[in-house]
Amino acid sequence: MQRIIKLKEPIPASGKGKRASDVYRIAAEIMCQKGYEGTSMNDIAEAAGMTKAGIYHYIRGKEELLFKIMTYAMDNLDQRIIAPAQEVADPEKRLRAIVECHTRSLLEGVGAITIVLEEMPALAVAHRRVIKARKRAYFDFIRQTLQELKSEGKLRDINPTTATFSLLGMILWISRWYRRDGNLAAEEVLRDYVDIAKNVVLKTDKAASKR
Amino acid sequence: MQRIIKLKEPIPASGKGKRASDVYRIAAEIMCQKGYEGTSMNDIAEAAGMTKAGIYHYIRGKEELLFKIMTYAMDNLDQRIIAPAQEVADPEKRLRAIVECHTRSLLEGVGAITIVLEEMPALAVAHRRVIKARKRAYFDFIRQTLQELKSEGKLRDINPTTATFSLLGMILWISRWYRRDGNLAAEEVLRDYVDIAKNVVLKTDKAASKR
Repeated sequence: MQRIIKLKEPIPASGKGKRASDVYRIAAEIMCQKGYEGTSMNDIAEAAGMTKAGIYHYIRGKEELLFKIMTYAMDNLDQRIIAPAQEVADPEKRLRAIVECHTRSLLEGVGAITIVLEEMPALAVAHRRVIKARKRAYFDFIRQTLQELKSEGKLRDINPTTATFSLLGMILWISRWYRRDGNLAAEEVLRDYVDIAKNVVLKTDKAASKR
Repeated sequence: MQRIIKLKEPIPASGKGKRASDVYRIAAEIMCQKGYEGTSMNDIAEAAGMTKAGIYHYIRGKEELLFKIMTYAMDNLDQRIIAPAQEVADPEKRLRAIVECHTRSLLEGVGAITIVLEEMPALAVAHRRVIKARKRAYFDFIRQTLQELKSEGKLRDINPTTATFSLLGMILWISRWYRRDGNLAAEEVLRDYVDIAKNVVLKTDKAASKR
């Protein structure tokens, strides 16, 4: 049960895709520091070590940049969390895979990008609709997993919707508090989170009988 | 264990204090919709049904208003959560009191004010220091409670710091998702949260023996 969970390097990317993802990450960090409204395209160009013309090669304006960062975040979520977890038939193991992958990606330092995902009011209406639907799909994926656990009699006596929000809250909050240069090792936090999530959701007797 | 937990009315206040707290609440809601930077003093005056001169009777400017909202939020936290919980000697019961009171206050609709508490970069340095210290004191109060549970052998095998952040994350997230006009009754969410928090923190055998 106490096996070490290896952490991978931050989101891998290369070539032109890597340059774009660097810009998204830098822009997200500045938006977290200064707030979305308080951030100018100049700030972003300067931090990315590019000219303003260079930055406009990637994006047309601040709202589009915000939408691109969010799209990038949701693409990563799809590829790194949802797709692998969908391969796991057993809901108990699938839940573990979701919690492990999502927690890991936040510990690896996509925190600013996750926080920027909350800047929904700044999006144009059509963009907001797209991101909202993708967030909703992720929520439903977790909730469906808890529903399956309920059908199997493994879910504790809690509402699956409330439980899903609890899990997401504790996981997403990592981007607000975890410091990679702080006292807590990522491996230790990851192990505790997987353990905590299991206890939030699963009946104790069932969990115990699995050990 | 399944006793109904009664919800009180939103933060009670009256007279001039009530008017000020109304302004804080309205301002917080607008800041959540438009972002702090995107909100003008005009927007706030309009939403509060006051003249701009009227609003300047309460506050000198937007940064001071933000600081006052945060001070108001932390005063409420002190009065409604920390002070009553400090009276509870037993750490298990104290933790329950903290989770119950904090969850309740978010379900009662101080959500916008809680979200605005995250606008730390917008504060002047001296103000930021004050709010940061108060948040830290609350964090330490919860963490200390978990440390006491650990001394009593009741804490599960998790790091008390990580566990504190998990609890705070799931509780604070309520302000992002809970809708008072939605499908979930506040009483039901409150009961589930108290139950979930217990399972996050306490060893199962101890918890079971208490039933």
